[in-house]
Amino acid sequence: MTVTRDDVERAAKRISGRIRRTPVLQVSPTLAFKLEHLQHVGSFKPRGAFNRLLAAQERGELTGPGIVAASGGNAGLAAAYAARELGVPAHIFVPKTAPPSKVAGLRRLDADVVQVGLEYAEAFAAAEIVCAESGALLVHAYDQPEIVAGQGTLALELLEQLDGFDTVVVAVGGGGLIGGIATAIGDRARVVGVEPRLAPTMHGALAAGEPVDVRVAGCAADALGARRFGTLGYEAVVAHGVRSSLVDEEAIIAARQVLWQEYRLAVEHGAAVAHAALLTGAYRPEPDERVVVVMCGANTDTSTLA
Amino acid sequence: MTVTRDDVERAAKRISGRIRRTPVLQVSPTLAFKLEHLQHVGSFKPRGAFNRLLAAQERGELTGPGIVAASGGNAGLAAAYAARELGVPAHIFVPKTAPPSKVAGLRRLDADVVQVGLEYAEAFAAAEIVCAESGALLVHAYDQPEIVAGQGTLALELLEQLDGFDTVVVAVGGGGLIGGIATAIGDRARVVGVEPRLAPTMHGALAAGEPVDVRVAGCAADALGARRFGTLGYEAVVAHGVRSSLVDEEAIIAARQVLWQEYRLAVEHGAAVAHAALLTGAYRPEPDERVVVVMCGANTDTSTLA
Repeated sequence: MTVTRDDVERAAKRISGRIRRTPVLQVSPTLAFKLEHLQHVGSFKPRGAFNRLLAAQERGELTGPGIVAASGGNAGLAAAYAARELGVPAHIFVPKTAPPSKVAGLRRLDADVVQVGLEYAEAFAAAEIVCAESGALLVHAYDQPEIVAGQGTLALELLEQLDGFDTVVVAVGGGGLIGGIATAIGDRARVVGVEPRLAPTMHGALAAGEPVDVRVAGCAADALGARRFGTLGYEAVVAHGVRSSLVDEEAIIAARQVLWQEYRLAVEHGAAVAHAALLTGAYRPEPDERVVVVMCGANTDTSTLA
Repeated sequence: MTVTRDDVERAAKRISGRIRRTPVLQVSPTLAFKLEHLQHVGSFKPRGAFNRLLAAQERGELTGPGIVAASGGNAGLAAAYAARELGVPAHIFVPKTAPPSKVAGLRRLDADVVQVGLEYAEAFAAAEIVCAESGALLVHAYDQPEIVAGQGTLALELLEQLDGFDTVVVAVGGGGLIGGIATAIGDRARVVGVEPRLAPTMHGALAAGEPVDVRVAGCAADALGARRFGTLGYEAVVAHGVRSSLVDEEAIIAARQVLWQEYRLAVEHGAAVAHAALLTGAYRPEPDERVVVVMCGANTDTSTLA
C-alpha cells in the first residue's frame, strides 16, 4: 500500500478547520522554522489522527465503540483529542509503567485509559484484541496510510506559506511525519531526516534494506522511540531518497536550549533533534540553501529549558 | 512633540532586516496571536531600540561613547542587543539591587553594566548625567519619539499579515508599545490597552488627565512596572481613544498558564496580561469581532509555566 500526494491533498481538505495552520518564523534569509509545536495538544500528531478518524467516519467505520490507540505520548494525546472533538469515545492503552502525568494528561482529554502489561508492545497487543472484539477503530501511532497522509499536510502548508525552499529538516521517529512530508514534497525540495544516535530507527531500516527492530533510548525516546520504522514511511523515504543524519544526546540537549535562548521556542527534545543537525554540521546546507526546520513538538518539562 | 504614522513607516524601513518579522498564529476565525515574544532578546523592545540608534546614526549622533540606557529588563536587553549589532558600546545603568541574573544577561550581550543607587530612579539620574558628560546617546525605555515609532512597526506588520481585524489587545507599561500601535493603526481598528490592577500606569494617567506617578507592584511589574506613563504614549492613546482594561494578579497568572497549556506559548506575565482581559471578560469582544492579542515578551522563568 502506497501513500500518494493525492492522499495528502485529500487529507488536507478533510482536516481543514480541525487543525491549526501553524506559522513559519523566518529567522534569516536562508533559515525558517515551521512552528508545528503550536499545534493542538503540542505536536503534529492531530493531523494524522483527524485524517484517520474523519476518513473512517466517511466510510461508516467510526461507530459507537469509538477508537483505540496504544500510546501514552503525543500519538495518544492526539487520538484522544481528535476523538473528543468528534464526540466519540477514546480508549488509550498504555503499560502499567506509564508515568502518572501522562495518564492524567490523557484523562484530561476525557480518554478511557487502559493500563495493560509492562511495555508498549503488550499494551499494543491488547489494543488490537479489543479492536477486533469491539469494532472500535484502531489508530496507529504512525504506520497507517491515513496517518501518514495526514502528517504530510504539514508540508502542503509549507509550500503555500513560503515562496520557495530547498530543504526540509525533520526529526524522525516511526516515519509517519517524514513519510508524509516526503510524499507531499515530492521533488520540490530535499527532505532530510534526523535521528538521535540512540534511537536510529530509520537509519537501521535503511541500513538493513527493510524495517528492523532497533534499540532505542536517550532523551528524545519519549517522542521518537519507535522500535521499528513503519513500512509506509520506509517506502516513502526510499522512493524519495531521503537522507539520514544522526545526532548525539549532548547536541540534542544543547539545540533545545539554543531554541529557547535565541528564539524563545519551547520545544521537546524530539523536536530539537532536527535543529541539532544544523548546529552540529551533521547536515551542512550550501551557503545559499534555503532550509526549513520543523519544530514538531512541545510536550516537555519546561523547567529544563533554560 | 507628536509621533505620526509617517514616523512609524520611516521606522519600519529603517529597522528592516534588523528585527524579526514575527508570525501570527490564528487560533480561531475571530482570534489571532501576534507572536512578538519570538523577537530578538525575547520582547518587542528591539524595534524601538534599533530605530533610536539607527536614526541617531543617520544624524551623526551615534559616536564613540556609544549608548546609555537605564533598565535591567527588556528595554535594557534590547538597547544592549541593538548596540552590539551596530558595533557601538552600550552602558546599561541598573540599581545595585538588580538581580544577578539580569546583570549576567546584559553582560552576555557585551554591555558595560553600571550599578548605581538602590532604585531605578537613581540609576536613570546617573545615566542622564553620564550622557550629558560623555556625548553618549540616551535610549529611553519608552518615552522618546523614535522609541514609540519603532514599537509601532509591530502594527504595520499586523496590517500586512492579516486580511483584516477589528481590535488589537495589548499589555501596557510605559506606553511605548501602545502609543506606537495606536499611531500606526489610526482608525483602521480599535486598540485596547490592558494593565495589571497593581500597575495601572495608563489608567492613572487617563483618570488624572495627564501622566502621574502611580504605585506599581505585582507579578508583571518587571515588564510593565513604569511608575509614570510616557508623555508621547499619553498623547497617542488620548488622540486614538484607546480603551483601558484592568486585570487581577490571579487572572494574569492563569492566562499565562492557559497560553502554555492550550497553545504552547511560553510568555512572561507582562505578556499574559493582554490575554487575561479576554479570559476574564475585562474586555468582551462582540461575537464576530476579529481580535488580535499581542504576545509582547517571553523573558520569564519557564519552570513556572505548567
